[in-house]
Amino acid sequence: MDANIYNKSMKARVYVSFKSTVLDPQGQTICQALHGLGHKTIAEVRQGKFFDIELAPDARRDDAEREMRQIAQDVLANPVIEEYRVEFLE
Amino acid sequence: MDANIYNKSMKARVYVSFKSTVLDPQGQTICQALHGLGHKTIAEVRQGKFFDIELAPDARRDDAEREMRQIAQDVLANPVIEEYRVEFLE
Repeated sequence: MDANIYNKSMKARVYVSFKSTVLDPQGQTICQALHGLGHKTIAEVRQGKFFDIELAPDARRDDAEREMRQIAQDVLANPVIEEYRVEFLE
Repeated sequence: MDANIYNKSMKARVYVSFKSTVLDPQGQTICQALHGLGHKTIAEVRQGKFFDIELAPDARRDDAEREMRQIAQDVLANPVIEEYRVEFLE
């Protein structure tokens, strides 16, 4: 049996956030709301998304890594204004 | 000078996601879209949010931890259907 094949299901997490040069109005609104609620120590808030993706149990790790990067680039993130990071949860 | 006071700005990240017992229709829709695009190895997708919070440079770590938990509980998450996790980025 190929050692590269896992019987346990594989999980990946894709983080998507605005590039640091892009304004985040939702984060700014949350920051202002927190100031209004008395949380004066908050300097900045930036919001992001993550996607927990469960792969089929027979997925190969190297194929899965390539596929996750492709999905992040094509579907989950808008590469013009967003950046992404793929992480595998062992 | 109190060793508990940091001169560097402190950063916290709050993760918010649906409780595992709560349906995630947005994640299901992404999962179906990925199947339609030919990514057949995807078994499940669940979406979550995160908030990168920068604190004032003179914030104390123990106060900051208490404040982050309070903000997550009261503002960022809906504790009826969502769970949260606070992480400090050193």
